[in-house]
Amino acid sequence: MFNEEGKYSVEVCFSPLSWSLYDRDDAVVVITDIFRASTAMCAAFHNGVKSIIPVAEISESEAYKEKGYIVAGERDGQKLDCADFGNSPFNFLEPSLRGQTIVMNTTNGTQAIKKVAHGNNEVVIGAFINLSAVVQYIMALKRPVVVFCAGWKNRFSMEDTLFAGALAERLLNDGRGDYHTICDAAIASADLWLLAKGNPLGYIEKAAHRHRLRKMGLDDIIEFSLTADYTQAIPVLSGKELVDAHRLE
Amino acid sequence: MFNEEGKYSVEVCFSPLSWSLYDRDDAVVVITDIFRASTAMCAAFHNGVKSIIPVAEISESEAYKEKGYIVAGERDGQKLDCADFGNSPFNFLEPSLRGQTIVMNTTNGTQAIKKVAHGNNEVVIGAFINLSAVVQYIMALKRPVVVFCAGWKNRFSMEDTLFAGALAERLLNDGRGDYHTICDAAIASADLWLLAKGNPLGYIEKAAHRHRLRKMGLDDIIEFSLTADYTQAIPVLSGKELVDAHRLE
Repeated sequence: MFNEEGKYSVEVCFSPLSWSLYDRDDAVVVITDIFRASTAMCAAFHNGVKSIIPVAEISESEAYKEKGYIVAGERDGQKLDCADFGNSPFNFLEPSLRGQTIVMNTTNGTQAIKKVAHGNNEVVIGAFINLSAVVQYIMALKRPVVVFCAGWKNRFSMEDTLFAGALAERLLNDGRGDYHTICDAAIASADLWLLAKGNPLGYIEKAAHRHRLRKMGLDDIIEFSLTADYTQAIPVLSGKELVDAHRLE
Repeated sequence: MFNEEGKYSVEVCFSPLSWSLYDRDDAVVVITDIFRASTAMCAAFHNGVKSIIPVAEISESEAYKEKGYIVAGERDGQKLDCADFGNSPFNFLEPSLRGQTIVMNTTNGTQAIKKVAHGNNEVVIGAFINLSAVVQYIMALKRPVVVFCAGWKNRFSMEDTLFAGALAERLLNDGRGDYHTICDAAIASADLWLLAKGNPLGYIEKAAHRHRLRKMGLDDIIEFSLTADYTQAIPVLSGKELVDAHRLE
């Protein structure tokens, strides 16, 4: 694992607050926010959405709405007044959205993209529902990998860490030895995933955000969000929009 | 685990960069830096040292040295010129140190103490070598608990996390139900400890800092640092010095 020669590193950043320690400009940066933004984005492209414009401010969402865009977004589980729907992944599976551009209000996601989109970084959105597709996409790029966990209010979050671990496990055991890690956070993530993978839904019962979502009645998306490989869609950043990587080929 | 009523919370802060999210002033804050500062401090009090003055700047260490103090300290594994010895725990077990005050140069430890020492916080130094003693001390205090992991250059560190997990596991399974957690970092720490506890020495082989210490020839302290309950000593902050809690009783 510590033999670095000719191998690409795998690192995991547990909190946006720590990003400066992991920042580089030659990496694939995989942004994840399992409950619920990154899962929703993957669902959207599975559904054939053309592009997603991520925005952080409500005023931006309002401005796009006035211009006639479809707007998604919420704050603390409540749909924004200007939004057509909230950030539940199920909303993004609506057939009428095919071919459309959606403006998505996601504070975490937008800030994460701003932080990592520089140099030669490739920015990819990862979730359990597109895990294998992301793994294949990353392996073809042959670059260092950093997983950016959005976390919960900048704190370590179990569900994002489990995704990071599932991804790290796949890369570090790719069968070709292309990847290595000297990042304890990557090792810890992979080990936690080993504990969880037999029954992710059962394991996530202990997670704090699982509990918060239940309290808010927003926990209908848990099982879907933990379903591996629901889709082949791979949201990637192209300019200021997210598009499906398959469209860029 | 999520029933909070009348229970004390257990939280784990993985990096000094995240401390503001965990900061409060009614807690027992357990500072840990397993390789090697917190283990060295516990070893010192086991050996009967009277007090430890933690300092961050080399100029402070030099000033104390000129006043005739015993000075310990290093940078990147190299003993400071002004120091009598480096920060290996074994140095602090030297019989001649009994009854003495030691000035210890520890950048991480000193900064951690400055961050957490306010309000009614009790500041305790924890390590595997005083685990059970710290657990008993904490339980008697009946307060919320936050573990402050010093980490490695502000990054998540496996060894500090395993200690946090060992402590969290003991508190959350105290047999009285006095503690609860809604902190994913505490849950993850405890789960990683479950993976490691059967063979901590074997488990830590994967940790990045284990690898670094080996490269620097400083890995002779690994086994000792992972030995549970070598001592009953409990370093606590009293004013600007650390003393053994048993002396305050």
